[in-house]
Parts: sequence; C-alpha cells; structure tokens
Amino acid sequence: MSKQKIRVYRDIVEVNAQWSNLTRKLLKDQSVVMLNIIGSPGCGKTTLLEQTCKLINQDLRLAILEGDIETTRDAERLKDLGIPVSQLITGGTCHLQAQLINQALNDLPLNSLDMVIVENVGNLVCPAGFDIGENAKLAVLSITEGEDKPLKYPLLFREAGAIILTKTDLLPHLNFNLDECISYIKQINSEIPIFQVSAFAQKGMQQWIEWIREFAQKG
Amino acid sequence: MSKQKIRVYRDIVEVNAQWSNLTRKLLKDQSVVMLNIIGSPGCGKTTLLEQTCKLINQDLRLAILEGDIETTRDAERLKDLGIPVSQLITGGTCHLQAQLINQALNDLPLNSLDMVIVENVGNLVCPAGFDIGENAKLAVLSITEGEDKPLKYPLLFREAGAIILTKTDLLPHLNFNLDECISYIKQINSEIPIFQVSAFAQKGMQQWIEWIREFAQKG
Repeated sequence: MSKQKIRVYRDIVEVNAQWSNLTRKLLKDQSVVMLNIIGSPGCGKTTLLEQTCKLINQDLRLAILEGDIETTRDAERLKDLGIPVSQLITGGTCHLQAQLINQALNDLPLNSLDMVIVENVGNLVCPAGFDIGENAKLAVLSITEGEDKPLKYPLLFREAGAIILTKTDLLPHLNFNLDECISYIKQINSEIPIFQVSAFAQKGMQQWIEWIREFAQKG
Repeated sequence: MSKQKIRVYRDIVEVNAQWSNLTRKLLKDQSVVMLNIIGSPGCGKTTLLEQTCKLINQDLRLAILEGDIETTRDAERLKDLGIPVSQLITGGTCHLQAQLINQALNDLPLNSLDMVIVENVGNLVCPAGFDIGENAKLAVLSITEGEDKPLKYPLLFREAGAIILTKTDLLPHLNFNLDECISYIKQINSEIPIFQVSAFAQKGMQQWIEWIREFAQKG
C-alpha cells in the first residue's frame, strides 16, 4: 500500500482560534494590551477613536488598526493624530479575522507601545463571534439606533468588557428612553460598565478615558 | 468492487441558490412580488415598514416576514396593522437564508397576496450577499450613519433596486452633507432611485409609496 497524504480541512473558526492564541502570546510577551471596538456602521466608532486618542495620547503609547471592507477612509481620518495607524481591508468579509490582525501587529513597533486599539468592520453581529486575541471587546451603540438593540443583538453585549453609548448630544431630538436602554443592557450583562458620551460634542469622555487608563494598567 | 455511496457536500451559497430559485418560481406562479429590506441595526427599517404598510395597505394585499437574530419584538410592533406578519428568527446567523424564507412563504396565503416584504436582520454587510429569491433588494441608510457608508459598504448599494435615506427629520441636528452622500451613492450605482424620508415625522413618504405601487405592478 502506497503512503497517502492526509488532507486536513480546518474550520474557519478553528483557524481563527489558532491565530488569536498566537496574538495573545505576542501581546503578553510585549506587555501590550489590545481592545477590539465593535458596533454598527455609522455608530460613531471612528469619531470616538479620534477623540479618545487625542485625550489619552499623552499617557499611553497607542497604535490603531482600522478594519474596513473597502477604502482607507478611516485610516486617513486618523493619520494626523501622530500615532501609528494601519488600515486592514477585508475585501468583502464582514469581520476582521485573527490572522490579518496578527500580521498587522507584527509590522508594528510593539516594544514601544502600551495599547493597540482595533476598530472592527461596522457590523453589530459577526465581529462579536470572532476572537482576534484582544484583551477586551468594546460595544459601541449609538442612541440613534434605538433602545432595544442589546436584546435583539445580544452576543456582543454579552461578550463586551464595556459599552459606550454614543451621540448623546442628539438625545433632545430623539424618541429614545435612556433608562430603558440601560435596563436592556443589564438584562444581558448585569455588571458591565456603561459610558454615555458624545465624542462630537466632547461630552462625557472623562470616565471612559479613565476606564481605558485603568484597563491598560491591569491588562 | 462494492458499490459506494458518494457523499455530497454543498456550499452554503449553493444550497441558498437552490432555495432562492424555488422561491422565485413559487412567487412567479402565484403572481406575488417580494422585496428584501436591508440596512444596519436601528436604521429605521421597522418604522419605515410600519408607515409604508399603513399608507399602502388599501391598494396592495401585503404580508411581512420579519427577520431577527433573537426576539419577536419587531413582529409584535407590526401585528396590529391587520396584515399577516411572521417572525423569522435566525438564532445567531447574521442574515436570512433562502430556505427559511421559502418555508415561511409556504405558510402564507400567497394566492390572496400581491406583495411580501421581508425585513432582513439588521446588518449592512452579510444580507446583501444572500439572495432569498426576492424581486428587489432595498437599501435603507439612516442619515445618522454618515455620508460615506455607500463607499465603505458598496455591495448592498450596488445590488439594491432602490435606496431609502431615513430619519431626515434629524438633518438640522446633524453634521451630515446630503449632496455628498447622494454623490457617493451615484458613484456606486448611478441610476438607482433614492428616496429621502422620515417615517417617524411622516415626511417624504409619497414618492417612495408610488415606487412600491409601480414595482408591484411590473413585478
């Protein structure tokens, strides 16, 4: 009997887990903390990131990985912040995969960084199911999206380490019940910290920035 | 040599295509037109659908298929309209698949309907890649999401038969350039009809309703 090669097919989730484990080791070795920001298209992730970087850049050495299906628009928006920004283009895929993150991290000067912030593809659903080796996922929900999104898309809100409610400057113009939204979040994840911010109007950013500072320290 | 069974593995996209072809035949045989509404979580799909049904229910015999990952909240919102509403729960999957649609259609009284409107899972990305046998996809984009979403998530805007810009009542409160957004849409899909509506404030609905009426006639 001739020797036969065994063909091995691996499921996308298993391959992803292998790469995210490599990334976790890499980050630990370099004492770098990584956050994975997830939310719908247009929920204000990039504006939040812009303002967060401006407020925290003095204290933490940051780098940004910008995930998008197409275009380098978000990286262009951030490049003037004076911190390393890489654009990760998925070319159609609805979430960032761990292999691409690992590749991008290896091109960064990790030994001179404290934290890498990843902005995932705009999608409240799929990115929540793909570990990229991050220390925490952050859920971003714009108050323009309505109160009930935590109930309708629970995975992200269950998995996240913190929730940032954005665009709070629009509250007077919306039919949005903040208490109801917070009670829905707590049904899904009773202990999670919730921040209410308007990055555009630069309101409510302080507590959120404080949380990031502490998170970077404890890792 | 003993007879061996051949195991056939089909890709999810191929299985989906088989079911959507069955659905297309079913709808054609019954002279029913089906629309597939796609947009981000909280872009206003359900509110648009509520107002659309109220305005058009006199002229067209409608039914609604409500797609969600979890909960029956959206179907509950629509059930008082006096038209058949079914809730399709994907249980985690980020888009509606053709098989579930086919099953739900077979439970509807198709021979007494003119049009079925499907509200897909809130997701600007994945549902655009899955044909469910519809006559047209409709892209819903809330102006709170920013001008550049057609460039960043082009597949849906390329595939859609019409685009509905929602929440236009918020225009005075946003830093949103409508002309820029429309020029981005036209870069992706130069001929597509674009409707500007506020279903909440009941503004701009007339042209959109007119488009649906015509679409139902020509199929």
